[in-house]
Amino acid sequence: MSDYRAPIQDMRFVMDELADLPGIARLPGFEEATSDMADAILEEAAKFTGEVLAPLNAVGDREGCRWQDGAVSTPPGWKEAYRQYCEGGWNGIACSPAFGGQGLPGALAVAVKEMVCSANLAFSVCPLLTTGAIEALMTCASGELIETYLAKMISGEWTGTMNLTEPQAGSDLALLRSRAEPQADGTYRIFGQKIFISYGEHDMVDNIVHLVLARLPDAPPGVKGISLFLVPKVLVNADGSLGARNDVACASIEHKLGIHGSPTCVMAFGEQGGAVGYLLGQANRGLEYMFVMMNEARHGVGLQGVALGERAYQHALAYAAERKQGRDAVTGEALVTIDHHPDVKRMLMLMKSRVEAARALAYYTAGLLDRSHAESDENVRQQQLFLAEFLIPLVKGGGTEMGIDVTSLGIQIHGGMGFIEETGAAQFWRDARITTIYEGTTGIQANDLIFRKLLRDRGATAQRLFAEIERTVSALRSHDDATLNAIGKSLQEGLCQWREVTRCVLASAKTQPEGALTAAVPILSLAVTVSNGWMMGRAALIARQRLDDGDAAAEFLQGKCVSARFYADHVMPQAGAYAATALNCLVG
Amino acid sequence: MSDYRAPIQDMRFVMDELADLPGIARLPGFEEATSDMADAILEEAAKFTGEVLAPLNAVGDREGCRWQDGAVSTPPGWKEAYRQYCEGGWNGIACSPAFGGQGLPGALAVAVKEMVCSANLAFSVCPLLTTGAIEALMTCASGELIETYLAKMISGEWTGTMNLTEPQAGSDLALLRSRAEPQADGTYRIFGQKIFISYGEHDMVDNIVHLVLARLPDAPPGVKGISLFLVPKVLVNADGSLGARNDVACASIEHKLGIHGSPTCVMAFGEQGGAVGYLLGQANRGLEYMFVMMNEARHGVGLQGVALGERAYQHALAYAAERKQGRDAVTGEALVTIDHHPDVKRMLMLMKSRVEAARALAYYTAGLLDRSHAESDENVRQQQLFLAEFLIPLVKGGGTEMGIDVTSLGIQIHGGMGFIEETGAAQFWRDARITTIYEGTTGIQANDLIFRKLLRDRGATAQRLFAEIERTVSALRSHDDATLNAIGKSLQEGLCQWREVTRCVLASAKTQPEGALTAAVPILSLAVTVSNGWMMGRAALIARQRLDDGDAAAEFLQGKCVSARFYADHVMPQAGAYAATALNCLVG
Repeated sequence: MSDYRAPIQDMRFVMDELADLPGIARLPGFEEATSDMADAILEEAAKFTGEVLAPLNAVGDREGCRWQDGAVSTPPGWKEAYRQYCEGGWNGIACSPAFGGQGLPGALAVAVKEMVCSANLAFSVCPLLTTGAIEALMTCASGELIETYLAKMISGEWTGTMNLTEPQAGSDLALLRSRAEPQADGTYRIFGQKIFISYGEHDMVDNIVHLVLARLPDAPPGVKGISLFLVPKVLVNADGSLGARNDVACASIEHKLGIHGSPTCVMAFGEQGGAVGYLLGQANRGLEYMFVMMNEARHGVGLQGVALGERAYQHALAYAAERKQGRDAVTGEALVTIDHHPDVKRMLMLMKSRVEAARALAYYTAGLLDRSHAESDENVRQQQLFLAEFLIPLVKGGGTEMGIDVTSLGIQIHGGMGFIEETGAAQFWRDARITTIYEGTTGIQANDLIFRKLLRDRGATAQRLFAEIERTVSALRSHDDATLNAIGKSLQEGLCQWREVTRCVLASAKTQPEGALTAAVPILSLAVTVSNGWMMGRAALIARQRLDDGDAAAEFLQGKCVSARFYADHVMPQAGAYAATALNCLVG
Repeated sequence: MSDYRAPIQDMRFVMDELADLPGIARLPGFEEATSDMADAILEEAAKFTGEVLAPLNAVGDREGCRWQDGAVSTPPGWKEAYRQYCEGGWNGIACSPAFGGQGLPGALAVAVKEMVCSANLAFSVCPLLTTGAIEALMTCASGELIETYLAKMISGEWTGTMNLTEPQAGSDLALLRSRAEPQADGTYRIFGQKIFISYGEHDMVDNIVHLVLARLPDAPPGVKGISLFLVPKVLVNADGSLGARNDVACASIEHKLGIHGSPTCVMAFGEQGGAVGYLLGQANRGLEYMFVMMNEARHGVGLQGVALGERAYQHALAYAAERKQGRDAVTGEALVTIDHHPDVKRMLMLMKSRVEAARALAYYTAGLLDRSHAESDENVRQQQLFLAEFLIPLVKGGGTEMGIDVTSLGIQIHGGMGFIEETGAAQFWRDARITTIYEGTTGIQANDLIFRKLLRDRGATAQRLFAEIERTVSALRSHDDATLNAIGKSLQEGLCQWREVTRCVLASAKTQPEGALTAAVPILSLAVTVSNGWMMGRAALIARQRLDDGDAAAEFLQGKCVSARFYADHVMPQAGAYAATALNCLVG
């Protein structure tokens, strides 16, 4: 099945109404992001992802990648698709125009990224990593390295990788052993083995730019002795042409549960005497540079959850509208399509509302990141950044856990057919399973939320967020529409629970860290449930207003209200359960 | 990894203390189920499943089954393992001694079944179906058919299948089209295509006994016109020897998400002029006979969820005790195994407590089924049967949904390694995914609970169950141990919520079926959460008592209390969320 259609209407609604793209387009540097421009981009991206990338998704799953003598072949058709992807200018959509990018705001580019992930998650991993590497170079590379590498990475002519993990060092990077030996010419020789390197080797481009974490000889132990190096697969001559092959080899690729089209490589650096590497930024600050791009990377993975949920929803919706089975329990009609059955409706609505809610939070957060770069007032920039950073573990942890749940519902709606691989529903679920693990597990997101994002300003950002949510609660509760009222009531309860848990964790996290660490994931789930519900409440208010104003998109806007109400009735009650569990850990 | 060790201590605790095996062993027909007998059986079964079946689990996943020219080869080693399984007498452990079975109570046999499923789910599907077919034959076959087939199925020499599903008829069997033409000799000719037939063809035995649903020429439409036929793969001569091949063919096998070792066949009946079939019982009562064995089959699938959860738990526990990563957040110790990290502990405890709770409900229900057969008083038998039938959708729906959640946590604990197939954690999750679908989806379990099991006696069985739970609540709350008190409090709240929802659904299900149908799965989840919590509460009371009595198994019994408390703190709060959602559907 290759039937992905980008949900442009919801994307536009969310970016315009909830992430305030029109406001962002008034900020310096983002003036090109007009409504017409957004239309054009979304339509083109929908066409490309639907027609080129989506049909290759099942191919990638079935054929996988092949390793032979150190070379990796991507699945049939991928090389050509990647060429088209680059030609369309999609790779550099949000990158600096100074190096050939389009410089669009994240709140617009996010929709394109979602489409690419929905259409073909395994494919999307390659540009995601290249984008991360680009950001890292922008942060800390010297002018010369930027000159040599950046434009080619932005165009997509060369791709990028992140070489962090080693067999003994996964979540705990303090245990890194790869080492870098300084050379007389100012370069370094890199030695070590890295694992789980996505697109560490592949056949879609002529050169691959590896960013590698390694230790200098005199480095202090632990995370403060890690430096970041640029290690190209092929050395680049002074004139920019490709030179000799560097001492970097792909030793093998993994046999994985999902994203078969994305080669996960074991990379060997320096087995022939040392891989030539270039220090990025200052020595021993590698982890810090990596964390600069962590926001973007984690946001991107959260978006993968949204994207897979959307794809699975479309797939299940289409099946449920075709498959006839059983009698209509209410009308008694003899043989109906299964989307008439209340429990199937419930599952479809659960998929839809959870995807919409997570999408809204992801786009909203992308907008905050735009503002954190482009607002003129430094205080405003800082506040937007802190709020974005507070929400990123929610986008990542919440989006990915939702993605697993929702793709599982997609299988369930297919019944026995869902278990047959050719149906395609199972792939989304298998692909989704990595998203709660890579770029920091859900547990790590939860710790980041509490021990970094909440505690670093003693809850000040949280309080600002709560005040925002409170405003939405007031608007909903004072509205004369019963649906909005009900949504407001459930949001109010959720907010109240989140506040109580936040008070409690602020009071006890430092003195009783074990309780807070045990409560962390339940607290993250609580935060996700309520902030997603906030987005749904905001969406309902705006949709209601536009309906009252006689907006032409009545069916879509009514759908937003129904979806928000469903979320309030079926998802928001979980906030109470997460809060109770968290309090049991914190107080118990 | 082939490191399954049957959790004999917990199995014995649950069957003795919660399912009252000693009481059941006093009932006529079950006298052999002494404590020594139970010890011997569990030890032998643990040995066989751990040493023979478990190591073949990954082999089956990797190699799968092969179809060629209508023949199906099972994975390497399976034929020999099946031979040993039969030689050990495991197939007929709970079957009638009159035909070579051992006649053991279900409350004991259930542990052996769990072990087989834990060790190798794909393998276990074959005996599960044979057992179902045996039950169907006992219910409705003539003496002659019983004479010819039963003993060989109980010994395992021949296996059985269930041929229900057709491409257009899945959950809705009213749509069946396979037909049976009466012949002058009293036999029938069967025509039609069946799909999703597990072990419809394989190489482990010489004959396969297909039970096939089909329509007679004069049958009324819908479910009341379906008859059940016995259709052997190979015809049996009057002397019991094998004769000519019947007109039954395996047209292909499916490429599935999981249980690769279990061949899922498309079966073609009658393409060469008609498959010889024998009517079982009376015409047009086929579905009724199928439902007789549905209790057992659904219970068995619920147990599969428990079994996979247990296996995944053991796998994750072993990994977490070996993998070193990160610093101890509380003691500050430098490099610790990950089972020191509070969030990993939380996940492991969530796995353990949810598996133990679901196991307890499954074993308890098996005990009720034993009593429903063996109690002398007919009223008691009837009450036990009604309670068992009330709980079976909870065992099935709850056990299988838990199995998916818990195997997913197992992957999560492995981090990136969990996504690599060779690690083995992913297989449990893939295998688990079918269990919420086959033998009736979770949605069908929920409808069965409400529209059949709850409404048929207007809640009388539910009220009896609530009164039982209330007694446990009282014992917990009046106890002077704080842990038991806390468990009692959470159980009391859950019971209160379940009662309220039950009142509401009894009042509205007939007049507003759509609300009840939408609320069905949340209500099932509520019922599962509370009744599993009840089992944990009972377990904690008994464990506490035995500890106070100076029982030697102190570590195990303390573990039961910890597990029950964890369940109360981390799982039971969800009851409130399910109840709120259900009420939103019923009232909203």
